[in-house]
Amino acid sequence: MGKKIVTLGEIMLRLSTIDNKRIIQSNSFQADYGGGEANVAISLSNFGIESSFITKLPENYLGECVLRYLKANQVNTNNIVLGGERLGTYYLEVGSGVRNSSVIYDRKYSSFSTLTYEELNVEKALKDVYILHLSGITPALSESCKDLTLKIIKKAKEMGVLVSFDFNFRGKLWTVEEAGKTFKEYLPYVDICFAGILDGKYILKLNVDEEKYDSFSEILKAYYKEINTIYPNIKYFISTKREIHSVDDNSLEGFIYSKGCIYNSKKYRFSIVDRVGGGDAFAAGALYGIIQDMNLKDTVEFATGASVIKHTIKGDANLVSVEEVENFIKNGAGKISR
Amino acid sequence: MGKKIVTLGEIMLRLSTIDNKRIIQSNSFQADYGGGEANVAISLSNFGIESSFITKLPENYLGECVLRYLKANQVNTNNIVLGGERLGTYYLEVGSGVRNSSVIYDRKYSSFSTLTYEELNVEKALKDVYILHLSGITPALSESCKDLTLKIIKKAKEMGVLVSFDFNFRGKLWTVEEAGKTFKEYLPYVDICFAGILDGKYILKLNVDEEKYDSFSEILKAYYKEINTIYPNIKYFISTKREIHSVDDNSLEGFIYSKGCIYNSKKYRFSIVDRVGGGDAFAAGALYGIIQDMNLKDTVEFATGASVIKHTIKGDANLVSVEEVENFIKNGAGKISR
Amino acid sequence: MGKKIVTLGEIMLRLSTIDNKRIIQSNSFQADYGGGEANVAISLSNFGIESSFITKLPENYLGECVLRYLKANQVNTNNIVLGGERLGTYYLEVGSGVRNSSVIYDRKYSSFSTLTYEELNVEKALKDVYILHLSGITPALSESCKDLTLKIIKKAKEMGVLVSFDFNFRGKLWTVEEAGKTFKEYLPYVDICFAGILDGKYILKLNVDEEKYDSFSEILKAYYKEINTIYPNIKYFISTKREIHSVDDNSLEGFIYSKGCIYNSKKYRFSIVDRVGGGDAFAAGALYGIIQDMNLKDTVEFATGASVIKHTIKGDANLVSVEEVENFIKNGAGKISR
Amino acid sequence: MGKKIVTLGEIMLRLSTIDNKRIIQSNSFQADYGGGEANVAISLSNFGIESSFITKLPENYLGECVLRYLKANQVNTNNIVLGGERLGTYYLEVGSGVRNSSVIYDRKYSSFSTLTYEELNVEKALKDVYILHLSGITPALSESCKDLTLKIIKKAKEMGVLVSFDFNFRGKLWTVEEAGKTFKEYLPYVDICFAGILDGKYILKLNVDEEKYDSFSEILKAYYKEINTIYPNIKYFISTKREIHSVDDNSLEGFIYSKGCIYNSKKYRFSIVDRVGGGDAFAAGALYGIIQDMNLKDTVEFATGASVIKHTIKGDANLVSVEEVENFIKNGAGKISR
Amino acid sequence: MGKKIVTLGEIMLRLSTIDNKRIIQSNSFQADYGGGEANVAISLSNFGIESSFITKLPENYLGECVLRYLKANQVNTNNIVLGGERLGTYYLEVGSGVRNSSVIYDRKYSSFSTLTYEELNVEKALKDVYILHLSGITPALSESCKDLTLKIIKKAKEMGVLVSFDFNFRGKLWTVEEAGKTFKEYLPYVDICFAGILDGKYILKLNVDEEKYDSFSEILKAYYKEINTIYPNIKYFISTKREIHSVDDNSLEGFIYSKGCIYNSKKYRFSIVDRVGGGDAFAAGALYGIIQDMNLKDTVEFATGASVIKHTIKGDANLVSVEEVENFIKNGAGKISR
Amino acid sequence: MGKKIVTLGEIMLRLSTIDNKRIIQSNSFQADYGGGEANVAISLSNFGIESSFITKLPENYLGECVLRYLKANQVNTNNIVLGGERLGTYYLEVGSGVRNSSVIYDRKYSSFSTLTYEELNVEKALKDVYILHLSGITPALSESCKDLTLKIIKKAKEMGVLVSFDFNFRGKLWTVEEAGKTFKEYLPYVDICFAGILDGKYILKLNVDEEKYDSFSEILKAYYKEINTIYPNIKYFISTKREIHSVDDNSLEGFIYSKGCIYNSKKYRFSIVDRVGGGDAFAAGALYGIIQDMNLKDTVEFATGASVIKHTIKGDANLVSVEEVENFIKNGAGKISR
Repeated sequence: MGKKIVTLGEIMLRLSTIDNKRIIQSNSFQADYGGGEANVAISLSNFGIESSFITKLPENYLGECVLRYLKANQVNTNNIVLGGERLGTYYLEVGSGVRNSSVIYDRKYSSFSTLTYEELNVEKALKDVYILHLSGITPALSESCKDLTLKIIKKAKEMGVLVSFDFNFRGKLWTVEEAGKTFKEYLPYVDICFAGILDGKYILKLNVDEEKYDSFSEILKAYYKEINTIYPNIKYFISTKREIHSVDDNSLEGFIYSKGCIYNSKKYRFSIVDRVGGGDAFAAGALYGIIQDMNLKDTVEFATGASVIKHTIKGDANLVSVEEVENFIKNGAGKISR
Repeated sequence: MGKKIVTLGEIMLRLSTIDNKRIIQSNSFQADYGGGEANVAISLSNFGIESSFITKLPENYLGECVLRYLKANQVNTNNIVLGGERLGTYYLEVGSGVRNSSVIYDRKYSSFSTLTYEELNVEKALKDVYILHLSGITPALSESCKDLTLKIIKKAKEMGVLVSFDFNFRGKLWTVEEAGKTFKEYLPYVDICFAGILDGKYILKLNVDEEKYDSFSEILKAYYKEINTIYPNIKYFISTKREIHSVDDNSLEGFIYSKGCIYNSKKYRFSIVDRVGGGDAFAAGALYGIIQDMNLKDTVEFATGASVIKHTIKGDANLVSVEEVENFIKNGAGKISR
Repeated sequence: MGKKIVTLGEIMLRLSTIDNKRIIQSNSFQADYGGGEANVAISLSNFGIESSFITKLPENYLGECVLRYLKANQVNTNNIVLGGERLGTYYLEVGSGVRNSSVIYDRKYSSFSTLTYEELNVEKALKDVYILHLSGITPALSESCKDLTLKIIKKAKEMGVLVSFDFNFRGKLWTVEEAGKTFKEYLPYVDICFAGILDGKYILKLNVDEEKYDSFSEILKAYYKEINTIYPNIKYFISTKREIHSVDDNSLEGFIYSKGCIYNSKKYRFSIVDRVGGGDAFAAGALYGIIQDMNLKDTVEFATGASVIKHTIKGDANLVSVEEVENFIKNGAGKISR
Repeated sequence: MGKKIVTLGEIMLRLSTIDNKRIIQSNSFQADYGGGEANVAISLSNFGIESSFITKLPENYLGECVLRYLKANQVNTNNIVLGGERLGTYYLEVGSGVRNSSVIYDRKYSSFSTLTYEELNVEKALKDVYILHLSGITPALSESCKDLTLKIIKKAKEMGVLVSFDFNFRGKLWTVEEAGKTFKEYLPYVDICFAGILDGKYILKLNVDEEKYDSFSEILKAYYKEINTIYPNIKYFISTKREIHSVDDNSLEGFIYSKGCIYNSKKYRFSIVDRVGGGDAFAAGALYGIIQDMNLKDTVEFATGASVIKHTIKGDANLVSVEEVENFIKNGAGKISR
Repeated sequence: MGKKIVTLGEIMLRLSTIDNKRIIQSNSFQADYGGGEANVAISLSNFGIESSFITKLPENYLGECVLRYLKANQVNTNNIVLGGERLGTYYLEVGSGVRNSSVIYDRKYSSFSTLTYEELNVEKALKDVYILHLSGITPALSESCKDLTLKIIKKAKEMGVLVSFDFNFRGKLWTVEEAGKTFKEYLPYVDICFAGILDGKYILKLNVDEEKYDSFSEILKAYYKEINTIYPNIKYFISTKREIHSVDDNSLEGFIYSKGCIYNSKKYRFSIVDRVGGGDAFAAGALYGIIQDMNLKDTVEFATGASVIKHTIKGDANLVSVEEVENFIKNGAGKISR
Repeated sequence: MGKKIVTLGEIMLRLSTIDNKRIIQSNSFQADYGGGEANVAISLSNFGIESSFITKLPENYLGECVLRYLKANQVNTNNIVLGGERLGTYYLEVGSGVRNSSVIYDRKYSSFSTLTYEELNVEKALKDVYILHLSGITPALSESCKDLTLKIIKKAKEMGVLVSFDFNFRGKLWTVEEAGKTFKEYLPYVDICFAGILDGKYILKLNVDEEKYDSFSEILKAYYKEINTIYPNIKYFISTKREIHSVDDNSLEGFIYSKGCIYNSKKYRFSIVDRVGGGDAFAAGALYGIIQDMNLKDTVEFATGASVIKHTIKGDANLVSVEEVENFIKNGAGKISR
């Protein structure tokens, strides 16, 4: 194989309601395992990229479930640390039509939140790696995770590994101020940055006169330019614009910015089977384009196509091949070949 | 708590097909319990209103299922009579897309159809009650039920309880002539009347020159005026207008009329998980507005929003809170907060 | 009963994924039995037509499943041959939204593919029969099946039975050249021909200057005229035009041509529960019209309505009555009668 | 085929709890169709005997379900009458271990209970029939059913058809006195009588000094002798003895008596999947032996083996072949042949 | 109603594997809610005793699930405190045959573990109450729970409420030394004590020369005498003896001791559907006997019968009536009454 | 890790009936993947042994399912060949109580049956391997498989790899004569031989005067001695003795013979969840003992314990750890540790 990717983050047990029931009507739950960075690793592995995932898991059957799931998807689990008290968990009441999904988080005190830089053998984990992918969820979980994120980013930089960082701001975990302060420590080392207008405005507190621009694309470009002026090290800015027609009917368009130019994908409208992990599928698609040296237009089309198709797949991860994404981009949906 | 509501009616076992199968393909059925007046009581209880439901149930495990379901929803069951031969039942073949739902009724000889006024302790049941809610299904079931309805309406009036009556005409149970004759005995005692244009035209045999009016809303208002002239005691007229695009894709708009003025809600188009009980959710929403002294515009918006959201909920009753309805009215659908 | 129909072909076990899972996520499969010609026989039997199905099945429990399924639908199974090694099978990954369905065929070496003309008692099977219905899948399966098809067509002709033939070209089984060569042997005996523009262009290699015509309907008519010139024995040409908006959202319009005139049905847009067998439901509807001597316009409306409603029914066959189709054509969808 | 059998009786919808739940914990039910006489017809049809079932069914989808089920099992349905209000129904809470099964009957007012002799074309239905099989449940259901039973028994006798009658006393439907009075009218016409000691003692009020006999078998023989003295027309007396170790662990032994001799089968102890229809499977097995002219010892072994194996089969009817019963009798259980 | 009971403790979400799968094979879990003291309250409520349960629940849908479950069982929830971070959870891999069940506890940091005496209105909660039932699990959970237990026991004593205490030692939560030290503070106030030989030996560190006694019953009596000498306030000692033949095949015998006399129940051997809550069903049965002033022999028979029947019921609580227990004790298992 | 194992064989899709249904009652199937040699590799991998599996799989989603399943169990898949037409399949009607399981094989023309020695890189696959495990099923499948077996056995021998061979005679695939002729070519190279008395008697046609010996164990020893005289290269003979009380109630005892001595395990009686793979679990346990240099008594105890516990696990492979097996051998079944 060629270039390798390593992602680091928390992977949780998702317990979802079944068959359109509310939680208060449920006497069973569907169990899936997922987390942004794990989803990216799994998707890239299904694209044929050599992927590795770093996390910390409890030494019990649930931890073993996670390991089996990662291995089935050919994600390298050699750098996973075992220990801690529990697997982070969340309950998803799956919405439908006009009824929103709702989430009960039960992720505090998780094994991952106790992970430290020192527990890892980072040198070994990052050896010969092309990209290290992280997200803004990890530093929001605990002080040790915040510290770990900074240290591994610096180490990656030192070892010549590209750093990919997804803002992924979660208002239930911390404030925009805390996030902003933290992310600003990381950004000088970042090469690939997943962030959007809201991130620029509320987390980085940038002032862009949005009225000056005609289109969403132009406004987004303006923000990216601003950030790039402060952090000229960032090579790619990437994000999506989602429109919500109903809980299971959305539109999506992708954007990639590099060296002053912005490219957008085709805009898709589509129905949804499982929305969780749609953004991670996009990130994996974009990183695939970068790893494969695709041009920026093709990269954003691939990323958006991958994300759209993910919305039809149950579970957190985008279990599709490169061929399936390319076929969808080229031919659209609805054929049975026989 | 504040003002109390009592509803009286039949609650049936609904046996629905599963997973888009036809009845002739089914070897299992989903079991739910519901009936218009029970649905109203349960919805109001989930809105925080003290609710009580009066019915008659057989003394067997199915009767116990109904009691447990009502209690779980905090509906007072103290005035329920036990006895009779069987629980009314119906089989619902759930339609999809262009295929209509179809129903096999098996409700004859039910325990409820044998309920008499004398079996109830009406004084006790209506003590300190603000609204008594009934529907036109009950008198259609048997002579004793017809008699019971008239007597309890009169007693409620006598005790200063507001009488709410939903026409709910069922052509499989009786003719428009029978219904009209019966309802006219009740209407002089009714305060809140759920009825629409078809009810005015075919059951009350009113003549309104529909051509004279520009809009559905104006025609409806004309009918309500007519009825109000005959029955000036009626304080509120309430109804919805449903448009059916397909079995699982409808539009809905609500209307409330009082003292010569009509108010309509926003019109929603939405996809459907379970249509049964959509009208009852609307009635419960309207009664909630009346109980809480909301203004008429807010009342009809609340009622319509409640009804729309019900269509996404499995089972007959609208298992949502006031906050969830208000949030939907304000923000629409499609967000996951995390 | 009146006029009888016999259909001959392969019936397979379909193992479908459940609940929107991919095959690689599945640990159980839904089992259905179906095949174009069997689907036609079953649909016609549900329309009240006396139907018989000829095939060859292995002598094991799976073969018995097929027999029980046909008998439950009142399809005559007296002419079915038992023997051979296995039941043809296919795995269907049911798509959703933008994700296509995909199929793994595992039908080689099936019992049916070994069926010979000599194993059948064709005289007995075709006695008093009005229509014999076949498709282009059968000759694609094996040499013996190709031979059998030709012989039975000729025998039917000889016995005064109308021959109905559905091109049903399958690119996974043979080439357009092979199909064309084979079909041309059959066409001189065919009375009712299910084929479309692509069949005319690529299989029969006809040259129609499509630019000359304004509409799809006109182009189709031109092709039919061409074919009819070569094979003046063909009394009816029948086909549909499908537009695919997404995997579960299609439009359909039907066409019938006879003696220089073409009739098209209303065009429906509809959501899909199970697309398999949609074309067979159309064929059954068209044959019903022909058997019942309906006029051509009514025939194509009935066929298209039947096909549209099939898309809401799980399994391969259109388990609906004539009344249900007529009610849909007349009233559309969305009512519950109560 | 050879000798034909006709059975007449009620077939009901059985709604059973799933997965060891109590009814009060259930939100879905398994749906099966069954009734003693239908079960006998289906079992015999699976043994290769030409079988016909007479009943009355409502004209709705549930009635159609019954028809499809009978046809799938190749039971002739030509003499079934359509009409009446409802399909008899019962709810079965399936017990386990020390917890008994319990039943809620909801069979009153069924279509079958309104069936009259005059609605049937008995001459046609009994033409060329070898055995007519009935049970004591039918006359317990209504006056018209009681009358029908007597008339069809007499007609059968007149037409030379053997009459098989299973006492099947149901204490929830009538008293032993009513049953006794009724059965005594039938017994002079009966050829094959399914009844046991309790039937002799409590229904026929016979006095047998049980103390005089050493074994169950001898006591049973004494009762049969007594009955045979009164009704010398009865050719065979047949019954089983069941011992209940727990709800899912029983023993069973079969007995057949003819012309003063009694034969018993091997006694089996076995675990239970579905006990409903165990007695009907025994009856079908015994009738099979009689139809096939097996000797009495082989007949009772076949009947008992068939009944034991039925207890492992879901649903009411014994869906096994003659070969499977014979193989079990010969080789017992537990082998996988591969 | 008559005498009331209040129980206090933690109620957890139990996520169990389905259909004999291991956790590592599971992609869904059955959800039940239970905890020793809640199970006792629910069982007693199903016996017709007025029951109330005190706990602390998070303010989310899972907390609401617990409330709905308690209400459905008519358990008073008025004294439940809302707040804290999470609902205690555990995963149960349900064993079978020779494979043990195994449990992953995830109960730390639960809402209940933060409950304090001060958050409760104990005066109100214990008003007119006959028995307060607690267990040794509560003090093992946190310091505040340990403190709460002591305070509420003393308050109950002061208010004349009988104190029932179940040792329920859990080695995963604390050591025998910690438990012993704590329990000794409670025992001077206890009236009804659920404890066995192991509790006497290892927790209370009593020395009984077991060799001196012939039977289990005599040894148990000796321990009870010893404890009673130290704590003469204890009126009843109660426990069971379980023998495990396999995971789903156990035997059980109950014992009750009072004023120097010991009574044992019949010993049952039975198969198991759900073992969780078997001990709580026994405790509820014993408390029922005490509340109803049954004699000691009848009490222990009732308690043991109740516990045995619980093992056939899914979920934690014994959803059976007094009649069902009495019927089982009298008639055993295996009859269907029809 | 330490010593490595490689196994080679066919892995099939098993489609099993669900919930005690017969195939003719089934409309869905449980899907598992398994085959003797794969089961051995997976079990050993779960014991912590480095395992690799060699086979040939079709290049479709079903092939991918197999790969994912093996990877999830950490079995090395690097030597698996992709190609051929289909995955071997079989349908298992799961028996219960007295009803036997039955199997429909549909494995002909499988990808594996076309595998040749030349398609493999045997040198690489066997490098540093301690044991190569094969079975007598492989040569029964095709000529190429027969040839491949012989060649790889010889190559293994040449490379110093221990050869383990399980007779696993399948009467549906070939005759005892064919098997005997083939196995005799392999036996001179075998080190570990899984075979029993029937194999010695019917396949190797040995004459042992069984009457001379007192016990099963002595007879078995006599056969092993005979074989060992002919093939002195064989170091271990291993087998089990199974007694079948009913389909889900068996007893099992294991035997190992080496250098003239025979050791037997404890005999277990146990209930069964899934019998498929019980023998493979035994083989894996025995190979584990050999790999870990356990003594022969401990080896046979471990193997038998492993096999017994497998019967409680769904699917073909023994998904348990060494600790779980050891704990079962030491403590038996029935405890929940909490």
